[in-house]
Amino acid sequence: MADQTRAFLEKLQVKPGKSIKLKERDPRDTLIFEDEELTKAATAQLAQEIDALQDRLYAEGQRALLVILQGMDTSGKDGTIRGVFNSTGPIGVSVTAFRRPTENELAHDYLWRVHEACPKRGTIGIFNRSHYEDVLVAKVHGLAPKKAIEQRYEQINAFEKMLSENGTVILKFMLHISKEEQRERLQERLDNPKKHWKFNPGDLDDRKNWGDFQDAYETMLDNCSTTWAPWYVIPGDRKWVRNAAIAHIVKATLEDMNPHYPQPPWKPSDFKIE
Amino acid sequence: MADQTRAFLEKLQVKPGKSIKLKERDPRDTLIFEDEELTKAATAQLAQEIDALQDRLYAEGQRALLVILQGMDTSGKDGTIRGVFNSTGPIGVSVTAFRRPTENELAHDYLWRVHEACPKRGTIGIFNRSHYEDVLVAKVHGLAPKKAIEQRYEQINAFEKMLSENGTVILKFMLHISKEEQRERLQERLDNPKKHWKFNPGDLDDRKNWGDFQDAYETMLDNCSTTWAPWYVIPGDRKWVRNAAIAHIVKATLEDMNPHYPQPPWKPSDFKIE
Repeated sequence: MADQTRAFLEKLQVKPGKSIKLKERDPRDTLIFEDEELTKAATAQLAQEIDALQDRLYAEGQRALLVILQGMDTSGKDGTIRGVFNSTGPIGVSVTAFRRPTENELAHDYLWRVHEACPKRGTIGIFNRSHYEDVLVAKVHGLAPKKAIEQRYEQINAFEKMLSENGTVILKFMLHISKEEQRERLQERLDNPKKHWKFNPGDLDDRKNWGDFQDAYETMLDNCSTTWAPWYVIPGDRKWVRNAAIAHIVKATLEDMNPHYPQPPWKPSDFKIE
Repeated sequence: MADQTRAFLEKLQVKPGKSIKLKERDPRDTLIFEDEELTKAATAQLAQEIDALQDRLYAEGQRALLVILQGMDTSGKDGTIRGVFNSTGPIGVSVTAFRRPTENELAHDYLWRVHEACPKRGTIGIFNRSHYEDVLVAKVHGLAPKKAIEQRYEQINAFEKMLSENGTVILKFMLHISKEEQRERLQERLDNPKKHWKFNPGDLDDRKNWGDFQDAYETMLDNCSTTWAPWYVIPGDRKWVRNAAIAHIVKATLEDMNPHYPQPPWKPSDFKIE
């Protein structure tokens, strides 16, 4: 892993067992990135490299990468997927958006639908929202008893540990935007008719609970950043910084996984094609 | 739809109710495409346009596009997905590869796993192989009684009609390669260590049954090209011709669907963002 990337991991990772103050993480931080256009070009290049690494992951067929994206409305979950994974194409990458659970999903435990959507070996799975909603919106809106929610942190850690021990590498990104940035992005959805479909009046209610959500995020980060599935807090106000940071981390992670083309149990000379 | 594309549809489509001879379809046909590099550049442009149309399909959220790819081993199903849909990225595009059915899948009717994988409204679903294997490999290898296989053509037509009447537009492409081209591609998988993982010794058995497979394809094309879900036979020996032809048809189909941004039940002035 390049030193530059290691410095990132250090800076953005939530250290397991330590507590974090989101107020001390600046959503407008530009990290090591200076020029916007140069950074965008470098990110496009990283996206190509991620694509090439994904091909090897697919050929190897032994391990998976799970990327979890969480953040307030408008924090750029879709934009991250487009910016970092568009070059990777749809073969070997699955995206699952977790919306309000269905009746059938609610009839099971909260990890049931999440487990079902986990990526197959050889592929990258991206979660747009995740089981973490069950300690975020569920907590702020009181959708489950307090005690049940308290129990979830450890349940989630155990679940993710099991995934990790069975071949799934997990990266978790909180897209950290400021309340002012969210105001601008929501306003843009009202001002631009092509974005009306993205505007959900209910988002304004969550915005009213901004402080409660930030508290719930902090508790989640404090409890669920583990050595096997660390959380990264990504400065989200500048989309190009966000994409660059995540692309660096994803690429470094895939490089560390170092997937290799499998050795077949035969020699090419075993065959003659008629 | 452009006249050029309409000429394509005419030429490549299997006319519902007519019978077809695969021997009369040249796998090396270059259609209207002349220069390889210019055609590749035009296909990349079409892929961008498909991406833009997909965004509108997603915003609209009312209809889906199902693209079914069938063809002999090495016919280029994965290559088509990369060539035509890579720009579309993984949001709103799902790829399902149908492999040998699992025990659980075999415990249900053959359309059960296919139905489950059909694309959600707003998305494009791509099938790499499909329920058509149940009238192809199933027929050649005798995996089901003859009478059961005979019944499937009508069952499939009825199933696809239901999908179509419920908002899913269906395109079916048979990637038509020559036996000689397959030989070269299989040999390449043996010669190139990075392609060893793609080589499956079992493919050689299917190759021995080439003629039976071609017959099964013809019967399937004769029986299952319908007005609501037409089959196209795509010349497959030249990858750039294959991708160009399919990109044209997919783009024309999405243009005909003409998805539009939905009108929300509110006016922007209803809201003030605090």
